[in-house]
Amino acid sequence: MKEFVFYNPTRIVFGEGKTSEIGKYVSGQKCLLLYGSGSIKQNGIYDRVISSLKEQGVSFIEKSGIKPNPVISFVREAIDLARKEQVDCLLAVGGGSVIDTAKAVAAGFYYEGDVWDYFINKARITRALPIYVVLTLAASASEMNCGAVLTNEETKQKFNISAEALFPRTSILDPTNTYTVPRRQVANGSVDAIVHVLEGYFTGTYPHTPIQDGFVETLVKTIIATTRKIMESPTDYDARANFMWAATLALNGLTTAGIGKGGSPNHMIGHSLSALYDLDHGASLSIVLPAWLKYNQQTLARKLTHFGQVIFGQNDAAATIKAIEDYFHEIGAPIRLSEANIDRSEIQKIAENAVGLARKWGLKSYTQDVIARILELAV
Amino acid sequence: MKEFVFYNPTRIVFGEGKTSEIGKYVSGQKCLLLYGSGSIKQNGIYDRVISSLKEQGVSFIEKSGIKPNPVISFVREAIDLARKEQVDCLLAVGGGSVIDTAKAVAAGFYYEGDVWDYFINKARITRALPIYVVLTLAASASEMNCGAVLTNEETKQKFNISAEALFPRTSILDPTNTYTVPRRQVANGSVDAIVHVLEGYFTGTYPHTPIQDGFVETLVKTIIATTRKIMESPTDYDARANFMWAATLALNGLTTAGIGKGGSPNHMIGHSLSALYDLDHGASLSIVLPAWLKYNQQTLARKLTHFGQVIFGQNDAAATIKAIEDYFHEIGAPIRLSEANIDRSEIQKIAENAVGLARKWGLKSYTQDVIARILELAV
Repeated sequence: MKEFVFYNPTRIVFGEGKTSEIGKYVSGQKCLLLYGSGSIKQNGIYDRVISSLKEQGVSFIEKSGIKPNPVISFVREAIDLARKEQVDCLLAVGGGSVIDTAKAVAAGFYYEGDVWDYFINKARITRALPIYVVLTLAASASEMNCGAVLTNEETKQKFNISAEALFPRTSILDPTNTYTVPRRQVANGSVDAIVHVLEGYFTGTYPHTPIQDGFVETLVKTIIATTRKIMESPTDYDARANFMWAATLALNGLTTAGIGKGGSPNHMIGHSLSALYDLDHGASLSIVLPAWLKYNQQTLARKLTHFGQVIFGQNDAAATIKAIEDYFHEIGAPIRLSEANIDRSEIQKIAENAVGLARKWGLKSYTQDVIARILELAV
Repeated sequence: MKEFVFYNPTRIVFGEGKTSEIGKYVSGQKCLLLYGSGSIKQNGIYDRVISSLKEQGVSFIEKSGIKPNPVISFVREAIDLARKEQVDCLLAVGGGSVIDTAKAVAAGFYYEGDVWDYFINKARITRALPIYVVLTLAASASEMNCGAVLTNEETKQKFNISAEALFPRTSILDPTNTYTVPRRQVANGSVDAIVHVLEGYFTGTYPHTPIQDGFVETLVKTIIATTRKIMESPTDYDARANFMWAATLALNGLTTAGIGKGGSPNHMIGHSLSALYDLDHGASLSIVLPAWLKYNQQTLARKLTHFGQVIFGQNDAAATIKAIEDYFHEIGAPIRLSEANIDRSEIQKIAENAVGLARKWGLKSYTQDVIARILELAV
């Protein structure tokens, strides 16, 4: 095993009905409540949160309208509001886009310069307002990690931040809050969580990591099985619960601790697809992963074969990649650029955009040419 | 999945050479350094810790002599010393017995009454001095949980405490610090870690917990494989590293989150064997587990069979129990009371002692008679 530091102080409060405990956790603080397009007002989550806050006498203001690929302009507005209203904490009610927005606001609150500086490594996050979460979409694991990804609409960059101050204090995971998540978002979450664990599984530099590999295989098995159940029966509590916890564990530091310096090349390329075409994060990954695996098929042959055996009962690398593609198609996720209406002629432009993140992440082997060749395999 | 709260704020610093970073973590505080019989002075760990403390200008006092089954009288002395010297934190250099002692001292420091009150639920722990750990023995997972078990020599009770204030702040896990752990202690650690995960695996009340089960199976496979390697080659870094991390993950809350109200009946009975006969903790468990499994063989038949298939390639419950016994014997752990020189005539006395813990833990079905019948299966 390679050396590592594992640290994750987020408190997870998991179970049906736990939404109504949120007031207890933020008690005594003035909150900025953040959420998305307003679906939480239709499915009752908003009402449950508000009544819990009122019950505990929590004072709060709110700002809504966060988009699925959240943008930095919204963050700037929210920072101004948070300062003007002198809030003590942020309460994110939503999925990854809302939580990531809350993290950027929490850090930006204490910074005199422009918050985007954090994303381009011009400034380092050392302080942030406390962040609390009521999760409504299982996918990103942002509820139990210290990272966030935002898009700068002007520069067309989808970049990330990461700092210990950004771990949510408490995240409420109530599986019933995801009963109304539509099929397309379930598919996106399923792809996202699977790619989260597979990034480390296939890029970790240490040759023998039985604990991490076993955990990843367990999570992928669980995610595939529960996605299928959710597609059939959206209110299957156990399926929603296992899917939710698996997605959280998929990117909370556990499966990558000790694997050595890996990387997230699929996310790197996928982020460019979202930045340029506002493509769903999950859809960007279901397109990139098979292409990336094909590009690396020979190097990864042994591990791909093992993975295929354990997960799909397949016996070689090519069949494993095909099985992953088949699974993505089965749940309605695209696996080719054309399915997202992105023409082959765009590849150089995408590759040029992705190189920016490759440089930021120190993935030196990912030149524009290499990225373009990977994308050619997604045509 | 059942509802749960998962919270674990301990920072794990894992890898070869990390011992020399301990000074950085306790910097600016006056430490009470606790350790055991002094083996750390022979294998160089003591010197590495001291030089790291001195490098950072950390002021410290020390108290050694903690026994494998740690006792409350030592804790009382250490509390007096900690108060007299006005220390700011505790630094445990050792395995479970040293860490558990540090936890009891850390809590007792702030309590006016006798520290044993915490163990018999006469008082509740709300504050504790910060605890830091340099782990030298992989077994208990005390380095990443908030529990401790101590023996009261006068009352012959081996009882536990548990409180959030007792999570170590930082635990250094340097696998090379375990190179000199002798075979008997490796066997004890192997048994302890396996029983830690199996307690939940076999007692969890929720019928279908694929994530937790998969994690447990991964950990058990890893522990068995690495124990065998360590027995052959005590300085196999990878084996020591995987064993160490697996043992930590075996009782840090991860594998029990969501399984429902389980219990630790094997530990409950094992603790009595240690309290009455000063038997090694691991040895007490390798004797109790097969007997407990036999007692519950019919109820657990399906899960035992599945476990046997995954871990040992066995196909029924009885064969699985036999495979566990064979594994324990293979690594030199006792599986019968007679192997620990405990006569059958002692069974009622042991059962009477164990009922005390059964009551404390709310394991109502474990009457003296039931415990005696389980122990009969260990004759």
